[in-house]
Amino acid sequence: MNLVLIEPDELDAEQRVVLRDARAVHLVRVLAVVAGVRVRVGVIDGAIGLGEVERVERDEVVLRCVLEREIPARPRVDLLLALPRPKVIGRLYGALAQLGIGRLMLTNAAKVERFYFDAHQLDPAYRRAQLIEGLAQARHTRVPEVSVHKSLRALVEDELDVVAPRTTRLLADPGAHPSPHARCAGLEGRVVIAIGPEGGWNDFERALLVSRGFEPVAMGARTLRTDTACVALLALVHDALGT
Amino acid sequence: MNLVLIEPDELDAEQRVVLRDARAVHLVRVLAVVAGVRVRVGVIDGAIGLGEVERVERDEVVLRCVLEREIPARPRVDLLLALPRPKVIGRLYGALAQLGIGRLMLTNAAKVERFYFDAHQLDPAYRRAQLIEGLAQARHTRVPEVSVHKSLRALVEDELDVVAPRTTRLLADPGAHPSPHARCAGLEGRVVIAIGPEGGWNDFERALLVSRGFEPVAMGARTLRTDTACVALLALVHDALGT
Repeated sequence: MNLVLIEPDELDAEQRVVLRDARAVHLVRVLAVVAGVRVRVGVIDGAIGLGEVERVERDEVVLRCVLEREIPARPRVDLLLALPRPKVIGRLYGALAQLGIGRLMLTNAAKVERFYFDAHQLDPAYRRAQLIEGLAQARHTRVPEVSVHKSLRALVEDELDVVAPRTTRLLADPGAHPSPHARCAGLEGRVVIAIGPEGGWNDFERALLVSRGFEPVAMGARTLRTDTACVALLALVHDALGT
Repeated sequence: MNLVLIEPDELDAEQRVVLRDARAVHLVRVLAVVAGVRVRVGVIDGAIGLGEVERVERDEVVLRCVLEREIPARPRVDLLLALPRPKVIGRLYGALAQLGIGRLMLTNAAKVERFYFDAHQLDPAYRRAQLIEGLAQARHTRVPEVSVHKSLRALVEDELDVVAPRTTRLLADPGAHPSPHARCAGLEGRVVIAIGPEGGWNDFERALLVSRGFEPVAMGARTLRTDTACVALLALVHDALGT
């Protein structure tokens, strides 16, 4: 935990927060804080700042926070991801939050198994906890918005222009395409990257995405597993955008 | 499994291989191959080619292989990694093999717990199986060499010049350093990247690495977990090298 993340309503009128959960345990047992020490704090979807430890009692910590004016910007990259196996998506939330995405659209595809949609890893409370853990690691406050889509076609044809208008749209695809880094170098505005299921999009899905403005990009000859591909692509796009 | 990997001594004089293990099960039950079908094969640390199915019997598959002349090049990137928690390194082998590294040097550091060195995830047979699974995913044949070092100092001062001579040496470090992509763009020769433990290298370790030619590079303000950082760095360096 590199940043103590707090919900906005945990702060009282004097910018004081009383921690009694895992955050307090971490501060007391791992970081061994004492009164007067300052730790980095962040308000979820809000500002970052410093919290001065006012009081420590057996797994209860009181912080008085001084927050910066500016709220960290929402990451400029969104992900449209064919829903991976439950174990994989469960592990991926943290990595995605670390690297920074604005929105995660989890979608059906021909090669996505139906039962993936019933997994507990899709529960809003579960995924939010994982995302916040990733943010606490990476020292960021903006929680990615997550949406689940049972129809790729409805998502791409009807919904995408509403939730992600005026974006550069990229499609990770094997083949002789430009690298996502080369494609994104110096780009302004937001980027959506579509990443297919293990086994890839089928021809219909690929044509649908291309017809709605997704341009293929490729990361070389190697076929990466979904989780590795997501991290690699986000690293390349963020580096190219300078974010 | 995107590539059926076989040990060199599994091929008989007529380039025939009899599979009876998990590879055969995968070919029969997942890919449902029949006689005459061709599948991609690769000899471990050797050439890639095609294997024509000669015969299928209940979880036994006989392939006759035609291999390309050229052996895929050893990846130009090596990793010097402070040994992560057993669970993390256990999961990381596959991702590293997918992205491509020539050598993985796992080292001690002040913030590495001693018991990590006793984990079964360091057993040569275990790690080789994981690496080969990653290669089969990524369609590559070169198994990264893995070495385990109980002393960072001995590794950096005495051994590194022997195993990795004439390399560009980079040190992933938070701060205002160039991006690994910018640093590696158009570079010739091999690259070694040093990645520290959760919590970072201490001052002595950082100074030791810098004194032996490691140049700091940084991936922006976010503090990534070891596994995320490894994948992100390798993606950036390979893209910059064009490999």
